[in-house]
Amino acid sequence: MASVLGCVLTVTAVYIGGGGESSKQKLNCVKVNGSKSFALEKMGVLRQDHVMPMPCIGGVDEDVDALEEHLRQNIPRRKQMVDPYRLGEMVEKGVGYRQTVVIRSYEVGADKTATIESLLNLLQETALNHVWMSGLLSDGFGATHGMMRNNLIWVVSRMQVQVDHYPIWGEVMEIDTWVGASGKNGMRRDWLLRSQATGIVFIRATSTWVMMNKETRRLSKMPDEVRAEIAPWFIEKHAVEEESPEKIEKLDANARYVHSNLKPKRSDLDMNHHVNNVKYLRWMLETIPDEFLEKHQLSDIVLEYRKECGSSDVVQSLCEPRFNQNTGLNGHAVSSQILQGNGLLGALNQRPLSYTHLLQTKGESKNEEIVRARTTWREKKHGAKLFPS
Amino acid sequence: MASVLGCVLTVTAVYIGGGGESSKQKLNCVKVNGSKSFALEKMGVLRQDHVMPMPCIGGVDEDVDALEEHLRQNIPRRKQMVDPYRLGEMVEKGVGYRQTVVIRSYEVGADKTATIESLLNLLQETALNHVWMSGLLSDGFGATHGMMRNNLIWVVSRMQVQVDHYPIWGEVMEIDTWVGASGKNGMRRDWLLRSQATGIVFIRATSTWVMMNKETRRLSKMPDEVRAEIAPWFIEKHAVEEESPEKIEKLDANARYVHSNLKPKRSDLDMNHHVNNVKYLRWMLETIPDEFLEKHQLSDIVLEYRKECGSSDVVQSLCEPRFNQNTGLNGHAVSSQILQGNGLLGALNQRPLSYTHLLQTKGESKNEEIVRARTTWREKKHGAKLFPS
Repeated sequence: MASVLGCVLTVTAVYIGGGGESSKQKLNCVKVNGSKSFALEKMGVLRQDHVMPMPCIGGVDEDVDALEEHLRQNIPRRKQMVDPYRLGEMVEKGVGYRQTVVIRSYEVGADKTATIESLLNLLQETALNHVWMSGLLSDGFGATHGMMRNNLIWVVSRMQVQVDHYPIWGEVMEIDTWVGASGKNGMRRDWLLRSQATGIVFIRATSTWVMMNKETRRLSKMPDEVRAEIAPWFIEKHAVEEESPEKIEKLDANARYVHSNLKPKRSDLDMNHHVNNVKYLRWMLETIPDEFLEKHQLSDIVLEYRKECGSSDVVQSLCEPRFNQNTGLNGHAVSSQILQGNGLLGALNQRPLSYTHLLQTKGESKNEEIVRARTTWREKKHGAKLFPS
Repeated sequence: MASVLGCVLTVTAVYIGGGGESSKQKLNCVKVNGSKSFALEKMGVLRQDHVMPMPCIGGVDEDVDALEEHLRQNIPRRKQMVDPYRLGEMVEKGVGYRQTVVIRSYEVGADKTATIESLLNLLQETALNHVWMSGLLSDGFGATHGMMRNNLIWVVSRMQVQVDHYPIWGEVMEIDTWVGASGKNGMRRDWLLRSQATGIVFIRATSTWVMMNKETRRLSKMPDEVRAEIAPWFIEKHAVEEESPEKIEKLDANARYVHSNLKPKRSDLDMNHHVNNVKYLRWMLETIPDEFLEKHQLSDIVLEYRKECGSSDVVQSLCEPRFNQNTGLNGHAVSSQILQGNGLLGALNQRPLSYTHLLQTKGESKNEEIVRARTTWREKKHGAKLFPS
C-alpha cells in the first residue's frame, strides 16, 4: 500500500472521531467554571453559544498565545448537534454533518456558476466543520486525540468529484458529509451537494484517507485506539454509485501539453505550508487548451495523490487528451459519435471529452509524481434546465 | 472628474437603493400568486422563506433560462429585514446591513490568519448582500431600477482598508456595511469588521463609487430619479476616521521592482468578465520582495482605480518602497525611529514600512494606468494579544 499512496498536501486531513481525551496535551487542562477561567470574565462580552472550556495558563507567552487562539477559534471539546454560525447540524443519527451554504459572489466565474475550485473549497470546509462539531479536533488539522498520541496525521490518497449541475451565484445549497470504513486501515469521506430549494443533487464526491507518521512520513496502520475513536462515526452509505476503477496512466515527456517551471506562490500555501488543492487543480486545468475550456464544463474529476508539494518545489504539469491515447479511445464519446452516424472517422475528428493529467516536481536527478488526475467534460449548454418549464 | 476616475473592474458595483420598479424590464412582470406562477407549483418542494415573485414567461428559451436563474438565485424584490441563509440582518434603523461570518479554512494563509484577499472578498460579498436584501437588485451587479433605465452602472474609484487585527481560522466575525453621500454624484460605502465574541474592531474600510454609462463608458452625473432611490439609505457615519488625503504618486519605469508580462487567466475573471480585485492585489503584493513579506503584515491599503482590465490585457506591476522616494521619507516610520533615539541614519537603515504600487497595461503605443495603490505594513508579532491575559 505504501508504494501506491504518498504523503499529500493538505489541510483537509479529514477525520471524524468520537473518543477519549489526552490529559497530557497542553490545551487539555480544562476548568470551565473553575478559578483558571479568569480570562472569560476579563473578556467582557462573550457572545458565543458553544460550550467553551478553557485551557490552563502556564504563564509564558506561548501559553497566552495558545489561550488566545483557543478563545478566538472556540473549537468545541464536546460534540455539538447544531452550529448556528456555520448553519451546521448533525444528521444521520448524529454522526453525519449537514451545512447550508449560499454560493457567494466571488465563488462564481464569469458565467455566474460556482467554479470547481470553489466547490473543492466547500468540500474541505464542510469536512473540517464536521470534525469541528465532533468535539474531537485536537490539532486543528483533523487528527484525533488517539492519532496525536501516536504522532499520526491524515493524508488523502484519492478523491473523486462528479458535478451534474453547477450552482449559481446566490443559490442556497445543502452539503451533507459523512465517513465510512475503507479497507482495514483507511477511511472514506463522502459528500452530497443538493439544491436547498428543490433537493436536486448537484454534486457527489468521495475521498479516501490513510494515516501517516508525522516524523517518518511513512504510512501507518490504524492503531486500535484510533479505530475505537472513529469507527462509531462510520456509515455504510456511498455518495458515488460506483467508483471509477480504471487506473490513471502515468504520463511522460511525450504528453501533448506541458507547462513547466510552475512555482508555488506565498498565497498558494495552506495552514500546513503545503501547496493547496485548488492550486493543483488550476495548474492542471490551465494546461488544457483555452479553446476547449471555453466550450466545455468539467463533469467528473478523479485525483490520485502521491506526494506532498512544498513551497520550494518547481512543478511541471502534463496533460494528454484521452481521445488520442494508445491505451484506448475515449469510449463513450466515440461510440456516441458512431451511433449518430458519424462513423469512427467522424468520432476521431471530434474534440476529446476526457484528459489525463500529471503534476510532478522536476528534480535534478529525477522527477517525482505529486498527483495524477483524469478529468471528464461535457459541452456547455445554454441553460441548465433544473426546473421544469 | 472624468479624467481622474476610470472605468473599473468590478462585480462589487455596490449600490443600495429604495425605490420604484420598472414595468418594462423582462423580469418585472410579476404575479406571485397569479396564474403565471405555474412553475412554483411544478417545482415540487420549495423550501426557501423569501417572498419570491415570479417573472412572466415569454415561451422562448431565454425566458425559461431567465426564469430558472431567477428561481435559483431567489433575489428578493422587496426589502428583507433578515436573511437566515446569509446570517444577515438590517440594522441602523433598517438601512445598514450586518452579516455574521465564520472565517473558513481556505480563507486563511499558512499562518492561520485570514488573507487580505479573503477579507476583500468578504467586503464585496457583504456589500452585494446589502443590495440583495434591499429588494432592488435589478441586474445582479448592483444597479438600481433607475440606473437600469438610464443605462448606468456603478464603478469604484477609491478604496481604503485598515486592518488592525487579522481574524483567524474559525473565528466568528460581524461585518457591518452601509452607504452615504460622496459629493454631488458619488456614493460612499463603508465597512466595519468586529470580533463577534468581544466586539473588538479588527478592520475598517471605505470606498467611493460613481456612475458610468454602460455604452459610452463615460462617467455620468447621478440622475434625480436615482438619487431619489438611494438617498434614503444614506447614513452620516464614517468607518475610517480620516481618509488619507495624501496623493498616490504615479510610478514610472524607474520603479525599484517591476513585474512585466502579467496575463489574466480564465479563473481571474469575475461575473463582469473583468479581472477581479483579488488578482490586482496579488499582482501588486507579489511585486514586493519575499524577504519583506515574510516579516511584515499589511496594515493599510489605499487603492485608486483608473481603468478596467480585461482578459486580453497584458499587465505590468510596478512597486517602489516609499522610504527611498524623493517625494519624501516614510514619515511615520522615520519619526518613530528618531524618537527611539536611532536618529535619521538609523531610520534610513530600517526597512521601509510603506510601498507605492502601479498596475498598468502595456500597450504598443502607450501604457494605461489600471490602479495606483499604497500599502502600509507593520512587523509581524508573535501573538495578536486581543484578549487580556
